[in-house]
Amino acid sequence: MIPFQHGGNIVAFAKHCHCMPEEVIDLSSNINFVKPHLATDFNTVDITPYPNDEALQHAIASHYGVSYDEAALFNGASAAIYALMGYLRHHTTDSVVLYDPLYSEYERASNMFGFEIIHINRYKDLDAPLPKGALVVFVNPATPDGKTYDLELLLTKWVENECRILIDESFLEFIQMPSVSNHIKNYQHLWILKSMTKFFGAAGVRVGTLLSNSRNIAALASTLPPWRLSAFDAAYIRAALSDTGFVRRSHRANAESKAALSALLDSSPLVAHRYEGEANFILAKLHIPASKLQEALVPYRTLVRDCGNFDGLDGYHLRIAVKEIETYAGLREVLRA
Amino acid sequence: MIPFQHGGNIVAFAKHCHCMPEEVIDLSSNINFVKPHLATDFNTVDITPYPNDEALQHAIASHYGVSYDEAALFNGASAAIYALMGYLRHHTTDSVVLYDPLYSEYERASNMFGFEIIHINRYKDLDAPLPKGALVVFVNPATPDGKTYDLELLLTKWVENECRILIDESFLEFIQMPSVSNHIKNYQHLWILKSMTKFFGAAGVRVGTLLSNSRNIAALASTLPPWRLSAFDAAYIRAALSDTGFVRRSHRANAESKAALSALLDSSPLVAHRYEGEANFILAKLHIPASKLQEALVPYRTLVRDCGNFDGLDGYHLRIAVKEIETYAGLREVLRA
Repeated sequence: MIPFQHGGNIVAFAKHCHCMPEEVIDLSSNINFVKPHLATDFNTVDITPYPNDEALQHAIASHYGVSYDEAALFNGASAAIYALMGYLRHHTTDSVVLYDPLYSEYERASNMFGFEIIHINRYKDLDAPLPKGALVVFVNPATPDGKTYDLELLLTKWVENECRILIDESFLEFIQMPSVSNHIKNYQHLWILKSMTKFFGAAGVRVGTLLSNSRNIAALASTLPPWRLSAFDAAYIRAALSDTGFVRRSHRANAESKAALSALLDSSPLVAHRYEGEANFILAKLHIPASKLQEALVPYRTLVRDCGNFDGLDGYHLRIAVKEIETYAGLREVLRA
Repeated sequence: MIPFQHGGNIVAFAKHCHCMPEEVIDLSSNINFVKPHLATDFNTVDITPYPNDEALQHAIASHYGVSYDEAALFNGASAAIYALMGYLRHHTTDSVVLYDPLYSEYERASNMFGFEIIHINRYKDLDAPLPKGALVVFVNPATPDGKTYDLELLLTKWVENECRILIDESFLEFIQMPSVSNHIKNYQHLWILKSMTKFFGAAGVRVGTLLSNSRNIAALASTLPPWRLSAFDAAYIRAALSDTGFVRRSHRANAESKAALSALLDSSPLVAHRYEGEANFILAKLHIPASKLQEALVPYRTLVRDCGNFDGLDGYHLRIAVKEIETYAGLREVLRA
């Protein structure tokens, strides 16, 4: 079968299942299944003028507890990653340290910009030595396992090594844990990535945010094209941020579904190990290749994530997103076998 | 006053006028005032999954008469310019030839990527010699004057000089003139930029397209982040392309308004010269500084484009967008003086 080793490739999977994309049960991409209540009629968004993101940037900065000039907006987290890595590669450093396992996008972007890549396995070598001045990339909570790290000691070590630091907090809003954004005023080279649309349940809305001190943000912004965000997308995020009950509703529903998914994995003879994690997805190691389980789920039109292409993992690793409990029906059948 | 030397800075102008942005009459940005009929309810767009732009790319390629793999989509024409210039700078050439006057974005991007910039004034030196292998940028129809060029001879010269060629056809759809896209199969290094949202009347929708041969497109695409387009924006462009009467309706209404604007300029004692052009805007040289006229239009909340920051022009040049005839009321008063 086609190796579905990228989350959310629903169209290709639908072809493989001979069904429509909207019939696929997508447990491969970690988009929040809880949705904000939106008091916006998207048919009335004023799309004629060039977008002006001032109001959105104020709302986002306030949401993350930073100043307006400590945030830069991008059409998605992946656009932010490429912009920042390109900027740092051409202005400050030619080596990058990736704490594995992490998203393959970081390796792809690192290769694209010609970084020398140093891999550190965060399970085994968290304290490995670092090249001076490198860019370090750390995802917290981590993917694909959802493990969260207290970064204080690592931050001190990175700063001592004069590193550029990118903390990817794309999934932090799913858990109750403080951001390291309180350090952006103290640490000269600290950048924090926020993917707005995973927690806010809309991957088709392309808004991602980088936080850093205002000098860094201004320097990065001077390298960017103007008008990066859709007026529709800006309206969506502003409306989502206005739903004051969303965070609590979201946490409650995700916790309930996650407990059900955990129980399901724990009771399966196919599961060798379930990783403990705090985010809205679960990593498991199977007794069979993940691709076999993927194939077995085709009749149920259910897509899960084979993690064989994560550095530091192998083809027996599977990631499953936390979604409505009823979406696990096919998985329940298959895991019984 | 604040120098409003960038089109469409409505929010800043509104502050200057002490009015709301939606009360500004914007004659500074050349967004089509005719709008497509949209058979889409934007409240029902499926924004949960990661965007898949396959269907949109098929529709856009077909609209421009090229194959699917001869087009790459970006979140706006400016994003396309930055991506292409960055790609070419790092892979093929370190000098750029800008045919002035043209958008200031090209100079900004050229500086940002460290190109050596050669300026050629297209009014006076169209046949100026070129450095071998340089990237040439030509906007057709040109801005801010709307003049159109038959590029066949220039193309031959550029190819002889082994140039990389970027033809910006952002405003070509406003006129009846063939694209040079018929050459992308023959010319190895020809790129064509299409700004979808100027003609389709929505600058808040961020979709721009580059056309080239499939090898170039694949190489450029391999350097880009995934999921660049908003699902809302993709839905807008697909709906707009489905309005089969739009092109004709648009041409008719723009021609009528443009005739009225031309007459208004021709009868004014303040206008020294009206440039002949084919696009949906008109460049005029005044007997007074353009900033004076801009200031005189503040009571009418009308924003026009001072062209003093275009290379090859001076502060007596003014660009006015073709819009509904009734939006010219303030301009009519001021031009009488």
